[in-house]
Amino acid sequence: MALIVQKYGGSSLATPERIKEVGKGIIKTKKEGNSLVVVVSAMGDTTDNLISLMEKVNPDPPKRELDLLLSTGEMVSAALLAAALEAEGEKAVALTAYQGKIITDDFHTKARIKKIRSEKILEELNRGKIVVVAGFQGITPEETITTLGRGGSDTTAVALAAALKAQICEIYTDVEGVFTADPRIVPEAKKLKKIVYDEMLELASLGAKVLHLRAVEVAKKFNVPLHIRSSFTENEGTIIMSNIKNEREKEMREASGKIVEEPIEGFIVTGVVLDETEAKITVRGVPDKPGVAGFIFGKLAEANINVDMIVQSSSPEGKNTISFTVEEKDLPQVRKVMEKVGSELRVDEIIYDPDMAKVSIVGAGMQSHPGVAARMFTCLGNAGINIDMISTSEIKISCVIRKKEGKKAVRLVHEAFELDKEIPEEAS
Amino acid sequence: MALIVQKYGGSSLATPERIKEVGKGIIKTKKEGNSLVVVVSAMGDTTDNLISLMEKVNPDPPKRELDLLLSTGEMVSAALLAAALEAEGEKAVALTAYQGKIITDDFHTKARIKKIRSEKILEELNRGKIVVVAGFQGITPEETITTLGRGGSDTTAVALAAALKAQICEIYTDVEGVFTADPRIVPEAKKLKKIVYDEMLELASLGAKVLHLRAVEVAKKFNVPLHIRSSFTENEGTIIMSNIKNEREKEMREASGKIVEEPIEGFIVTGVVLDETEAKITVRGVPDKPGVAGFIFGKLAEANINVDMIVQSSSPEGKNTISFTVEEKDLPQVRKVMEKVGSELRVDEIIYDPDMAKVSIVGAGMQSHPGVAARMFTCLGNAGINIDMISTSEIKISCVIRKKEGKKAVRLVHEAFELDKEIPEEAS
Repeated sequence: MALIVQKYGGSSLATPERIKEVGKGIIKTKKEGNSLVVVVSAMGDTTDNLISLMEKVNPDPPKRELDLLLSTGEMVSAALLAAALEAEGEKAVALTAYQGKIITDDFHTKARIKKIRSEKILEELNRGKIVVVAGFQGITPEETITTLGRGGSDTTAVALAAALKAQICEIYTDVEGVFTADPRIVPEAKKLKKIVYDEMLELASLGAKVLHLRAVEVAKKFNVPLHIRSSFTENEGTIIMSNIKNEREKEMREASGKIVEEPIEGFIVTGVVLDETEAKITVRGVPDKPGVAGFIFGKLAEANINVDMIVQSSSPEGKNTISFTVEEKDLPQVRKVMEKVGSELRVDEIIYDPDMAKVSIVGAGMQSHPGVAARMFTCLGNAGINIDMISTSEIKISCVIRKKEGKKAVRLVHEAFELDKEIPEEAS
Repeated sequence: MALIVQKYGGSSLATPERIKEVGKGIIKTKKEGNSLVVVVSAMGDTTDNLISLMEKVNPDPPKRELDLLLSTGEMVSAALLAAALEAEGEKAVALTAYQGKIITDDFHTKARIKKIRSEKILEELNRGKIVVVAGFQGITPEETITTLGRGGSDTTAVALAAALKAQICEIYTDVEGVFTADPRIVPEAKKLKKIVYDEMLELASLGAKVLHLRAVEVAKKFNVPLHIRSSFTENEGTIIMSNIKNEREKEMREASGKIVEEPIEGFIVTGVVLDETEAKITVRGVPDKPGVAGFIFGKLAEANINVDMIVQSSSPEGKNTISFTVEEKDLPQVRKVMEKVGSELRVDEIIYDPDMAKVSIVGAGMQSHPGVAARMFTCLGNAGINIDMISTSEIKISCVIRKKEGKKAVRLVHEAFELDKEIPEEAS
């Protein structure tokens, strides 16, 4: 008997009818002899509606209260889904983060899971119940409710799969899996059958919204196989896993009845990703002294702001220019931090530019094939698209460009690497 | 500095604009030098909407899951109100029943408060914060979320006032206070300035929806003065208190600046109440043996069903007829219990009649003035209204009649006792 963690997104639970449909799918999996923990997001647009309600009473709400408010959306879904399962004659129980003991730090609105005390969940599983857990939320050791940030239910599901040593974590969503590019931008984009954690990490961090970045990080850390699939079809989606043949992979193969093939060697571009939420900050006239960059980014880290790309250029007069990108939504807070930092360091000027986008390609063996980067730059250059910043890693190349040119750039790069030509199912 | 507990109902919090208005009123009270704990209901029709959502996935939902679902409505209000207070520059904190440690038994959907561990609330008050508590909900020692039944937020407020030894508990609602009859039925009804606990208990138990019965019980038990008032006007409402001059009353007088007068002696009818939610069960052919009534009502009590009036009549053949009334909504569960009980006792017949209403008059010294009952019966009889069951107590007389004659009966009785003639402010 396998233990499976499933996660259903908001669009899969948007109406009572869909909740009942989801319930039937869960019962089918249960009747195949599996134990099930199901993590749910808030129904449809619930979270957005709650946020807009809050904005009407307080445009800059205390984050603690915002988290309490938002956490109710997932409680509603959990209660309804458990009741829908009971209506079909299955024993089920809905648990909040507090009841499921999902302990986080106290960074409200983007808390991180510290540990899960899974006794209660295991106890309910042992009673033969399907355990429905409210995703996206946690509780601090001081019993304050937190949320994990957008997409946090994915992280809840993977963390639970890790804590419970589940055979697989299935993420049910409104897309059919991971594609070579966003099909809404590139209609020729193909679905990937398999992808390794590192590539998925890059895709997620680069803005592929199919899966929460932190969920992939946790999956990789604890080697939890993920299956991203649609809740509206029975089609296989995309499997995300380690490329090392290990015990867990074998278990997964047995659990899912699927054949996991060895990845082939050599370079291939897996996908193209567009992130339109980038904002660029340029700091001119930074004193060229040791520790200055550490000071700036230390202050941003203290404010819990994720900095993405960093570029530093020096000038002969002993003053540097530092540019970096952050998520656009963090810009107001970044301004607060940087104004203080800027006056302390007596920099010349700070420029904030919210209209940036990042186009990235992801694939294995990128750095050992220098022609890849050249092909990307040429393709963008030929189209007259100016590249503002560049960053590369073992498995990705990112270019920051103007936001208005983002979609065009994705289509051009997808074509340049012929991703529409074949299904790269042996990508990893 | 006085500690005041305030409770705001769903209509007072129905929109973000109203929440902000409520916030301003709270801050005014705070600035007058008071400490404040504010209990909130769910916004507007939230609870009804959640129930109808649940009915769509499961018409007979597990009560544990229903409670989890319903509890979210008050969490939303609490988070929004706390944020609205912060927007006005006041320090505030929203607490769920779990965080506020409102411990109940595990009778889901109508749990009773066992105790409140008020350390957390006191700690936040000592920090100068306005503490906003989600009403209507509790948590069992096993950490399961419960709700207190319709109107339960009133009980939360009074229980908190008792636990915190508050000077007064102000219940803000959509009516201006307690009236001699429901003004929607009897337009001539007058507002009562003061009323004692026992009379309010009768009024509440008889169906006056202005205040939750259990809230009055708790207020009486712990001698918490209540002030029922409208959140839409600044008018004084109705004060509910003990008629014994005691320390708390003095405190209240000091806290509210109001003069509490000694009630005058003698009989007076305070008000007329209509309860249209009565259902009558008649059991024919009950064996005339000792313990049979105890057996029947014991079984109903085990199912947590409140039985209101009981009438037993014996026949010469050693078989009795027992009639009793329950809340109409409990009828499906009553049927379940009674079918079992009926076959065990081999009774002849059980008749269920949901179309009953109860008209009652409440006032001090009722039993020592036998003419009161006669005047009521005559008034109903003259109008051709048949009285099905009668029950009397020290301060009330109730008549069960056909539901369709209820409103007419209230108007007739209100007129018969000349309640429209003067403001009975010395009623108690």
